[in-house]
Amino acid sequence: MSYDFLLKDIHNNLTQKSIGTDKGLAKIGDGIVNLTYSIAKSIVLTQNSKNNKSIRTGAKVSKTILANALKEANMKGFSRTRADAHDLADTVEALVAYIWFIRKMTIEDIIHFLVESLDGNLTIRSEEIKSATIAFKNLLIEIKKHLPKS
Amino acid sequence: MSYDFLLKDIHNNLTQKSIGTDKGLAKIGDGIVNLTYSIAKSIVLTQNSKNNKSIRTGAKVSKTILANALKEANMKGFSRTRADAHDLADTVEALVAYIWFIRKMTIEDIIHFLVESLDGNLTIRSEEIKSATIAFKNLLIEIKKHLPKS
Repeated sequence: MSYDFLLKDIHNNLTQKSIGTDKGLAKIGDGIVNLTYSIAKSIVLTQNSKNNKSIRTGAKVSKTILANALKEANMKGFSRTRADAHDLADTVEALVAYIWFIRKMTIEDIIHFLVESLDGNLTIRSEEIKSATIAFKNLLIEIKKHLPKS
Repeated sequence: MSYDFLLKDIHNNLTQKSIGTDKGLAKIGDGIVNLTYSIAKSIVLTQNSKNNKSIRTGAKVSKTILANALKEANMKGFSRTRADAHDLADTVEALVAYIWFIRKMTIEDIIHFLVESLDGNLTIRSEEIKSATIAFKNLLIEIKKHLPKS
């Protein structure tokens, strides 16, 4: 099933900002970001667990992490001018939803990509924040390859 | 990539309750349920929109809807004894996560399944509740085919 009919208006005028400032995409992307991060974190925690115990966890990625990832990827141009941290985080979520809708990355691809970038001890909050920011920065740079140039 | 190593403890003692009462699976399943329902709802709203407008929306599925779906599917046996509505909803989320982890249904399969069952006018809250309950009931009956018999 193609989801193109859900993106008709965006594809009629496809720009970095038409994707990155879409509120509906951001809402759907919020779900994709938290789901893929939860599973990636579960995988990394399980891989690093000393007694080889399976660990399954839910995790919300904070707006600050997402906003910083967008800045570090030099992709603030996808957000609106004078965007605050909340707007920047929404832009990350919209871009992740878009890349999934156009089928350039599956949920499994995104999880795999995050797992590859996540390191350090994720049970220590400050290390997790640093690691998650880098992971989403790397994901954004990958996503950018499939996005319009302006 | 196989996710089996994330389910080792559950597979060591695989029962309806070991899946349905797992708190970690429920957390991950919460994300899958809300994501797939958001996209299914977006698809149905777009298909039914009069001016052919694309509609993208986020949506949270209430605990009541999920609890009632489990009851109507006659699958309370997957939850703990004397479960309240919150426990029953957690069980639905755990079962959805499990079926995805063991790769019997993809995210796209779940979305497609929900779309097939969703009808009525989803912009009217009472109709949405009725329709979503039936959709998750049908999804649960499908999932059950792949679950242990006791």
